Formats: sequence, C-alpha cells, structure tokens
Amino acid sequence: MTDVANAGDGENASAPATAKAAPKDPWALPDVSHLVVGVLGGTGDQGRGLAYRLARAGQRMILGSRAADRARTAAAELGHDVEGADNAECARRSDIVIVAVPWDGHAEILQSLRADLAGKLVVDCVNPLGFDKQGAYALAVPEGSAAQQTAVLLPESRVTAAFHHLSATLLQNPDIEEIDTDVMVLGDSRADTDIVQALAGRIPGVRGVYAGRLRNAHQVESLVANLISANRRYKAHAGLRITDV
Amino acid sequence: MTDVANAGDGENASAPATAKAAPKDPWALPDVSHLVVGVLGGTGDQGRGLAYRLARAGQRMILGSRAADRARTAAAELGHDVEGADNAECARRSDIVIVAVPWDGHAEILQSLRADLAGKLVVDCVNPLGFDKQGAYALAVPEGSAAQQTAVLLPESRVTAAFHHLSATLLQNPDIEEIDTDVMVLGDSRADTDIVQALAGRIPGVRGVYAGRLRNAHQVESLVANLISANRRYKAHAGLRITDV
Repeated sequence: MTDVANAGDGENASAPATAKAAPKDPWALPDVSHLVVGVLGGTGDQGRGLAYRLARAGQRMILGSRAADRARTAAAELGHDVEGADNAECARRSDIVIVAVPWDGHAEILQSLRADLAGKLVVDCVNPLGFDKQGAYALAVPEGSAAQQTAVLLPESRVTAAFHHLSATLLQNPDIEEIDTDVMVLGDSRADTDIVQALAGRIPGVRGVYAGRLRNAHQVESLVANLISANRRYKAHAGLRITDV
Repeated sequence: MTDVANAGDGENASAPATAKAAPKDPWALPDVSHLVVGVLGGTGDQGRGLAYRLARAGQRMILGSRAADRARTAAAELGHDVEGADNAECARRSDIVIVAVPWDGHAEILQSLRADLAGKLVVDCVNPLGFDKQGAYALAVPEGSAAQQTAVLLPESRVTAAFHHLSATLLQNPDIEEIDTDVMVLGDSRADTDIVQALAGRIPGVRGVYAGRLRNAHQVESLVANLISANRRYKAHAGLRITDV
C-alpha cells in the first residue's frame, strides 16, 4: 500500500495563493552539464558502463582506479575524452564522485579517500549482495546499507545513492541508444538529490526519480537480487520504471 | 549491476534439440479463473482494493475479517458477488489466501489460522514499515521479511509474496479501468509463483513478474517506503514496471 503519505503531508490546495509559496516543481532540475564526474572503481563493468554512457552524453568524466595506468588504459578504450587517474586524483578533480567499487573493499577504499572526497557530492551505486547456488541475496550491512556506510565514513562529503539498477551490459553496448529505466535517487539533501537526478537524466532514456532518504537505501540496493532473478527467468537485462510519476 | 546471473545459468543454446527439453516459456501461466481467493484482513484498504479488482475481473472472492459481520458488510459494499466471512472460514473455503493484515498482528493472526491454512497457497502482501516525521522506513523482521515469517509460522502452507506495490487508492477507484504496474511475485515453488503471477494478471493493466525466492522478499516489501517518498514528492500513486521483461 503506497498511499499512506498522501494523508497529512501538510499541503492544502485550497489555501490562498499568497499564503505560501507554490510547491517547487519536482522536475525543475539544475543544469549539471558543466560538472566533472569521477567514477571510483571505474575499471569495473558498472563503472565503465556509467562513464561511457555519461561521456557519450557530453559529461566530462574521469575513471578512477587503484592503479592510474589501468584507469588510463580503460579510459582510452571508452573514448569520448574520458580520462583515467588513480582514485585519489579522480576524487580531487571531480565535482561529483560515483562510487562503483566492489562491495568487498568498499569501506577500505572510502576510508582511504576521506580527505580527497571532502565537500564532494558522492553517489554510491554499490549493491551489497551475496551469491550461492540459488542466486543472489541481500547481505546485511551493519550501517544499514552501502550508502549509509559511506555517509558514516565520509562525514565531510554529501552522500547520495543512485544508479543501482542499470544493466552494465546495456550501458556498455554502443549499439544501444536508449536505456529504458528510471534511476532511483536517495539522499537527505534535496539540492544534492536534484543534482543526481539531473545527472541520471543525461543518459538517453533514463529518468532520475527521487526515492527517499538515505535510510531507505538498503532495499533499493538489494533489489538488484530480485532483478537478477528476473534476468535468469526471462533471459533479460531488467530495469525499473516508477509509474504514475 | 543486474547482469551477473546470465553467466553460468546452465543453459546452452547450441545444444542439440534432442539433448534436453526446451526451456519452459516463463509466460505460459496456468488458468486460475476457477480458483476461490480469500483475503485475510480483507476489510482494510489494501484487502478491499485487491478483492474489488479481482472480483471485477471475474474471480470468486471471500473477504476475511476477525468479525464475520464486518466482513459481510464490507463485501456487500464491494459488489461483484464478493462474500464475507471470519478469517478462519475465509481460509478454509479458499484455494488461494492473500494475507493483507496489518503488520502489527501479522504473526498472531497467522499462528491462529495455521490449521485452516494448511495446504493453501498463501500470498503475503504485508509491508513491515514504521512511520515518523521523516516518512516511512523499513522495519527489521527477525525472520527476514513478513513473507518469511509467514513461511515459518505456516509450515503446511505454500507461501509466496506479491501485491506489495499496488496503490490501494487506485485499486478501489471504480473509475480506473487499468492499473499501470507490475506485481513482483516471490516464492520457492515455480508452480506456486506461476499461479500467483496468473492471478495478478487477472487485474487489467497488471502483469505478474517472477522476482525471486522468498529469501529476497524483504527488499520488495520495504521498497514501499521508497514509493511513499516518491508519492510525497510527486503527488502520485507510484507503482513499478520491470523493463526488458
């Protein structure tokens, strides 16, 4: 049942127009085309896919990796002026930093980059999953979710979560023009989630949709286990659309 | 990243046709039009909405409630030959039993109906959520999820989970012909999830999509917190579609 919140949200459509400002249009998103976007773990499938798609849309992108030479090699393969750097340089030179590292190593890498990521808009897209013979399943995270762990480890950064449900295969396929999916964006600052929604919307076919505060990131991250189950059953690259929005 | 599962799923498209049976069409679902469907907690918004929609589609429905007279009153209001009964009679007379009771009371009600629900196909649609000034959030469930709690409490029943993301407001609105959403269906028996997918598909506009085993129910249940956040931001009745499936 998804209707609970419409009761008591404090909006009163019959109030005089002068009594309070009109609610902000949730689709009025900022221009982010001038921002530099880094991808930590950028040599993995998800990181390369996101960097490729965003660079192709005209975003200035920097791939980050533990080893700068590996990042530069991967960046050169992507074209579209993508640069490569070690993770620390990638973080320092970027306005927005997407965290696409493996869950195993997530905490360690972020801890080591705390100073480099201070003040940055950090977008965690990591899905803490386990795998066994029955497929994928959600891992318990002591902080609640990967994104909340990031917020704990990076108190000077602006932490959001997004880009969990995009198929790395589709992102990387140059023959695919549009990706048919919404990106759920989570965070506690509307200014920051607006920026991330705008960034998601740079990818043709994709729409960034606000989907709640960081405390509700766990289910968005672990829903990837369900999409993997659907992929198996239907031989697909499943994504998600939010309807009526 | 949702692509992991396509590796190593054991299918081999180049194997001779005679070597093994063709994979079953995942959209070849059984005819469920003859089955009687009960709804425990059928006098709540979600229960009434589901019963109304399914009855309108021609399904024989029984509303269950703690008090038979309340169930009968609610059933009469819905029309479409919906019947009312106390929860135990509703369970006994139904082939499929949808659990739409409040989370607070979920375990107690199911424990009391264990014998009545033996052998039945049980569909849990309960979302364990808490609410505070910042909106909705997922509650921790000792068994993992409401659906897994049901499976523990009803060892003689066939437990599945579905119908979490349908707006009760839309379900109950007689002017709305179609509901634009997929229903994620979870369970460990393919025969049972196929039946529930077919049942979901009886509602115009709705498609039942397999979305994994019961151990992956928690994130599907608690994703309702995110849809509630989207509803607040966009003044909507959000649902979900799975793309590329």
